[in-house]
Amino acid sequence: MHQVNLGMIGGGTVGSGVFHALETNRSLMAARIGVEINIRKVAVKAFDEPRPYSIPRSVMTTDWQTVVNDPEVHMVTELVGGTTFARTVILTALKLGKPVITANKALLSKHGEELFAAAEKHGTNLYYEASVCGGIPIIKALREGFVGNRVTHLYGIVNGTCNYILTRMKLEGADFDAVLKEAQAQGYAEAEPSLDIDGYDAQHKIGILASLAHGFWVNPDDVYVEGIRAITREDMQFANQLGYTIKLLGTIKLLDGKKGSGKRIQASVYPTLVPNTHMLANVNQVFNAVFVRGDVVGDTLFYGRGAGKDATASAVLSDLADAALDLRFGSHRRVPAFVAHEKRGVVVPVAEVVSRYFLRLSVLDAPGTMARIAAILGQAKIGISSIIQPEARAGETVPLILMLHEAPNGSVARALAKIGRLPVVKGKPVMIRVEDF
Amino acid sequence: MHQVNLGMIGGGTVGSGVFHALETNRSLMAARIGVEINIRKVAVKAFDEPRPYSIPRSVMTTDWQTVVNDPEVHMVTELVGGTTFARTVILTALKLGKPVITANKALLSKHGEELFAAAEKHGTNLYYEASVCGGIPIIKALREGFVGNRVTHLYGIVNGTCNYILTRMKLEGADFDAVLKEAQAQGYAEAEPSLDIDGYDAQHKIGILASLAHGFWVNPDDVYVEGIRAITREDMQFANQLGYTIKLLGTIKLLDGKKGSGKRIQASVYPTLVPNTHMLANVNQVFNAVFVRGDVVGDTLFYGRGAGKDATASAVLSDLADAALDLRFGSHRRVPAFVAHEKRGVVVPVAEVVSRYFLRLSVLDAPGTMARIAAILGQAKIGISSIIQPEARAGETVPLILMLHEAPNGSVARALAKIGRLPVVKGKPVMIRVEDF
Repeated sequence: MHQVNLGMIGGGTVGSGVFHALETNRSLMAARIGVEINIRKVAVKAFDEPRPYSIPRSVMTTDWQTVVNDPEVHMVTELVGGTTFARTVILTALKLGKPVITANKALLSKHGEELFAAAEKHGTNLYYEASVCGGIPIIKALREGFVGNRVTHLYGIVNGTCNYILTRMKLEGADFDAVLKEAQAQGYAEAEPSLDIDGYDAQHKIGILASLAHGFWVNPDDVYVEGIRAITREDMQFANQLGYTIKLLGTIKLLDGKKGSGKRIQASVYPTLVPNTHMLANVNQVFNAVFVRGDVVGDTLFYGRGAGKDATASAVLSDLADAALDLRFGSHRRVPAFVAHEKRGVVVPVAEVVSRYFLRLSVLDAPGTMARIAAILGQAKIGISSIIQPEARAGETVPLILMLHEAPNGSVARALAKIGRLPVVKGKPVMIRVEDF
Repeated sequence: MHQVNLGMIGGGTVGSGVFHALETNRSLMAARIGVEINIRKVAVKAFDEPRPYSIPRSVMTTDWQTVVNDPEVHMVTELVGGTTFARTVILTALKLGKPVITANKALLSKHGEELFAAAEKHGTNLYYEASVCGGIPIIKALREGFVGNRVTHLYGIVNGTCNYILTRMKLEGADFDAVLKEAQAQGYAEAEPSLDIDGYDAQHKIGILASLAHGFWVNPDDVYVEGIRAITREDMQFANQLGYTIKLLGTIKLLDGKKGSGKRIQASVYPTLVPNTHMLANVNQVFNAVFVRGDVVGDTLFYGRGAGKDATASAVLSDLADAALDLRFGSHRRVPAFVAHEKRGVVVPVAEVVSRYFLRLSVLDAPGTMARIAAILGQAKIGISSIIQPEARAGETVPLILMLHEAPNGSVARALAKIGRLPVVKGKPVMIRVEDF
């Protein structure tokens, strides 16, 4: 049987997960693909760094360069994370014409174009199924499964930590801070949780998915982002009363083109009211899901674990099989890392994006309050589709929930600033966008 | 740009759907994959046969052999359906070394092994993503995305007609016959609906998925099948009261091996109680979904339209891209049509399969009724986990709902035969299996 030797850089959580999964299912994979993948060496930071699965001492080294440069190493995994050393590792391997498999979304977001160009220049390839929604083969689905589709809409729950927190807030009627604290204690959230809960991790993933769906490189900085810190138990409860669930949703929409403007897309990450009847509303706990609408295929959804050593390992193994087969068949450029087929594309500023909205205001229950708020919305040409105001005694501060019709984000932001300045409105108005799919 | 010419055999519903989708997105596909796919000729039964999308007269011919034999035709689609002429078309093209793309699950079920062998012999390939769950790239997911996984469980809602009928029965509290009649009027069910509602279409698909998941060829005749004709409105309502939804579910489970017995799997299609909280319970209308549990990846789910000209076309286009790339890179055998990597595998008889059960009996509300039923179940070592018996006047016939603990299908069938013979039991006992995932 054809043999391919693998050099692994990184033997921590993900690296040892890949090592373990490959050792477990190596002969099954070989039987399936007709190529045996042998782990030649694993370069680690330190022999005794903590890792969930053990790696035999004899397989490890702390000298990554001997691994990458070993002429008997045919392909390389970069599973160290970060954007500096990882970049060096990948560029070194690509320059030697060796295919590289990575799970590093942050690196792809920052240096994707440079890495793709290096792979092309050296006639090899970069594989990154594991970088977005680990266990879900979404990159293969977009590039190969839906190759005959224009992707008009893509919605993703792509951060497991946020989805876990929002799920518990909903199911238990709990507060954000309490759930975050528990999630940290249980290892579902980092001690420094900002990357997840402020939406930056999702921003990286949505940037990569938008690039693949639309064929031009989307800089993650162009992906508008809002995290979930501001979501309260009350928002969850009122949303549910209206038939919605709040999810941190990545949204990628193909917008109508203006003449000669090239492709225009929305690419954003923000808390979103999802109708309870939609499949995405039922994606709970740490699970991820990506909803894709293609012009030919219609509506589809992919669901699975987005992170964790095992789900990520599954994706890395898929890439290892592709890379091994491409080595065997000399088809390294068969499905290139990224094809920039759209000459001109642009992510529109969020102010121009049109949505529906859920507003939660704290107002003084006094005559004329509603009239003043409605006047500001009316002037801005923003329609109100429904109102909830729980009964209260006059003079008290009460929540006022407004559902607004479609309007540009910019108009709503301006109207909200005015509403927030009304003396009868207490605290900062809460605005959450609504998606009807 | 590299050019590949396509000869299409079949220009009816699916054929014209593929023609239309390819014409619409041909330049997009070419930009993505770097290969232009040109439709050279479409062989049709008759120029004026009804088709949802028109095909220019100049592209059509009624002589399929000139299309397959044309030296300028590099690959062939078989979209005629049936198991005789379609087989001839495919074998003719494969013998010429031309890759074939098909959507024909019935043909694969009947002659898969012969066709796969022919493809191998002639150094080419057979592509069939469209044969199972049209819009869902499940074959690519199983063979490539989850190549590093042992698939321990696979559950599929794979027949849109049945799911449409069951969804309406549930949402409207309607009877099977009434919904079927409406579905036929609306084109969601065939005038001769047996292939769908008796489960045979699902049986073919589950046979193919079981083969791919487990690496030995599963003859669809070995897939135990029960359709949905016997499901009543009452079953739906009692199931819902217990927290379940009834779906026609294909089930493929890896069972514990006996020493030296080779691989043992369950492969079956039958109505199943699915917990309402499970994603599969929320797959409604004509949509399909496949739930896959892998030993590395954990739980995943894929959702989309399973049939229809457009969803099927999306899958055919994906295969066309793979075939065109394999032609360009000479990698025709990179992912072979089927790899029989499991030397010995067997589908266990349904009598040996262990499940939980929902029973609905019509019983005389008389003293001792429950005791007699419970005695038969007790003798058979089948435990009762819960009971619903709506209040009634003594002497009336009332429904009695029993939920049973895990037991082999064979034991339950024998016990039910005895229960059915009790004088206090009226009509045939209804048994529906329960899946806890």
